[in-house]
Amino acid sequence: MKAVALTIAPATAFIDITHDIAPQDILGGALELDAAYRYFPAGTIFVTVVDPGVGSARRALAVQAAGFTFVSPDNGLLTPVLRRAGEVRAVTLDDPRFALPAPSRTFEGRDRFAPAAAWLASGVAFEALGSPAGNLATLSLPAPRVTRDVVFGEIVRIDRFGNAVSNLSQTVIDGWCNGVPVTVEVGERRLGEPVSTYAEAMPGTACAIFGSTGHLEIAIAGGNAASAMGLARGTVVAIRGAVPLR
Amino acid sequence: MKAVALTIAPATAFIDITHDIAPQDILGGALELDAAYRYFPAGTIFVTVVDPGVGSARRALAVQAAGFTFVSPDNGLLTPVLRRAGEVRAVTLDDPRFALPAPSRTFEGRDRFAPAAAWLASGVAFEALGSPAGNLATLSLPAPRVTRDVVFGEIVRIDRFGNAVSNLSQTVIDGWCNGVPVTVEVGERRLGEPVSTYAEAMPGTACAIFGSTGHLEIAIAGGNAASAMGLARGTVVAIRGAVPLR
Amino acid sequence: MKAVALTIAPATAFIDITHDIAPQDILGGALELDAAYRYFPAGTIFVTVVDPGVGSARRALAVQAAGFTFVSPDNGLLTPVLRRAGEVRAVTLDDPRFALPAPSRTFEGRDRFAPAAAWLASGVAFEALGSPAGNLATLSLPAPRVTRDVVFGEIVRIDRFGNAVSNLSQTVIDGWCNGVPVTVEVGERRLGEPVSTYAEAMPGTACAIFGSTGHLEIAIAGGNAASAMGLARGTVVAIRGAVPLR
Repeated sequence: MKAVALTIAPATAFIDITHDIAPQDILGGALELDAAYRYFPAGTIFVTVVDPGVGSARRALAVQAAGFTFVSPDNGLLTPVLRRAGEVRAVTLDDPRFALPAPSRTFEGRDRFAPAAAWLASGVAFEALGSPAGNLATLSLPAPRVTRDVVFGEIVRIDRFGNAVSNLSQTVIDGWCNGVPVTVEVGERRLGEPVSTYAEAMPGTACAIFGSTGHLEIAIAGGNAASAMGLARGTVVAIRGAVPLR
Repeated sequence: MKAVALTIAPATAFIDITHDIAPQDILGGALELDAAYRYFPAGTIFVTVVDPGVGSARRALAVQAAGFTFVSPDNGLLTPVLRRAGEVRAVTLDDPRFALPAPSRTFEGRDRFAPAAAWLASGVAFEALGSPAGNLATLSLPAPRVTRDVVFGEIVRIDRFGNAVSNLSQTVIDGWCNGVPVTVEVGERRLGEPVSTYAEAMPGTACAIFGSTGHLEIAIAGGNAASAMGLARGTVVAIRGAVPLR
Repeated sequence: MKAVALTIAPATAFIDITHDIAPQDILGGALELDAAYRYFPAGTIFVTVVDPGVGSARRALAVQAAGFTFVSPDNGLLTPVLRRAGEVRAVTLDDPRFALPAPSRTFEGRDRFAPAAAWLASGVAFEALGSPAGNLATLSLPAPRVTRDVVFGEIVRIDRFGNAVSNLSQTVIDGWCNGVPVTVEVGERRLGEPVSTYAEAMPGTACAIFGSTGHLEIAIAGGNAASAMGLARGTVVAIRGAVPLR
């Protein structure tokens, strides 16, 4: 993919966000993208290929949103980006001039997405890539469930340290608890109040902490929480008031 | 290796093709290189180090072929490139001015191959790197066996999705079957006719498909064919006519 | 981290030394850095984040040493660099203008180290990053123990080929043995004299060899010494004279 892009746009600089998304894991790709894209320079072109439907009728897209361009299959990968973006423009990559000749039906990353991104980088107008795309596919992202006495969330991502990242943002929890201390529960485990740094937690002991994306994580300082505690995507996390809430 | 190259040729742009070749697997390196090199810009310098003979009498080479330059141990890594190339020129990297001083005998990638590539990139003439190399080492690549009733091939590569890529090119099979439908067999499994896209196959069911290098692959849509079916390099794949061939 | 750096210093070129340091393994990071940094162009800025103390009171540093700049937590990662360097200058990254706003306490690589490095790359003066740092944290690196009859070292690093690299440098051993042949022992295994190249060793048989960092390694030509022989960090390696030493 990079070779193809360089052939079209020789001055391209590449940054690899990740090559460690599990095969076919669109949600995992969407969440990793969401954790990273806002930090890139305005105008960055993202090529996001987690593409179990490669070769099928699912569309290939270029999308302008939030000051960036995304070249992606139309399968929901961009859901968190689109949810946060204001105006969105999208085209279907249906002009064969901007794909490789005789594109394969098993590796459109190389034959369609990389060339389209490189043509954009080399100055081709966004609208020239294809026809307007209309509605885009979206994933239904797991959402917190907020009740009077408890907030339920779930683990959505395991990082390479074994930290288990939930879908509970600090904004949601702060709004709910209104300054009253909270405790965090994972399965049968009560973890107490969130700590501010890994160093505050007892080494080897599970803790809750707001991580680098602003979401509550379950971690073990110096250890691997996911493997030690059996956490995986979907594991429920509950937040309760540490004292009865008024 | 990149640091050494940058010190000599500061404007070098690097693309990593792969760092996942198994140690000592020259054939695996040759096949990955073959799948990638044609997509790079003309003039690209490839540094290909799968080098179990490092430090021994095996030669270190620079090779011009197919509009590219390859800096490589003389151990067969370039076999598929050479087979497809027209004119080939090769020199042995025997001029110590273009290696690091006191090169180690365990990491010539850093001490000989990277510097030679960087000197080339910085404008040193190809012929200056060393003396003409004469005959180059080649691997005997596994070849299909074509009979009247069946074509036998074998698995040569497993990709990161678990797809098992064979040595049977679409060109060979199309020439053999002459438009008559074929069925694919792997071990005791009959997979039927090749599908055109992963999406055409039943999820979870093994299928055959022509992949992104134009070779027949065994895949499981949404799954890992190699681990589920026990496929590995050397597993036999057979192609027969779906109806009696005339 | 790269996205943040690019936003500040758009012309940055990135080289990844490694992302395979085990979580919290400061010594492992220090040794990998030591094996690599001298090969980089003078003036390179290294961002070295193995940081179990992230968010705690451990300081964030920029360090000038040996013609390079290192941006690193103050936790000993730079020990081998500092030991070998002449003059060293260090500042604490305490000027918030050169960090992201509202830095997280779990990912200072992104929010403090990458921005500081990028500001340096874009021309900010070293002294402007923060106040002078005084004494820096250091690790106690495992040192060889030299006696009259034997030199004891230990394995400090396993490379991706399974070679087990010791802390015994060729300089130390050559100085000790004074030209007399030596034998190498690992556990109960006597490996004989070091070989000069992997190709000199019997395939499948353990050997000792001076590797690419000038340290004695235990290797199996064509195999994985660490897994086959159960070698790990801390495994003792002994050097004795092959004939009685005078």
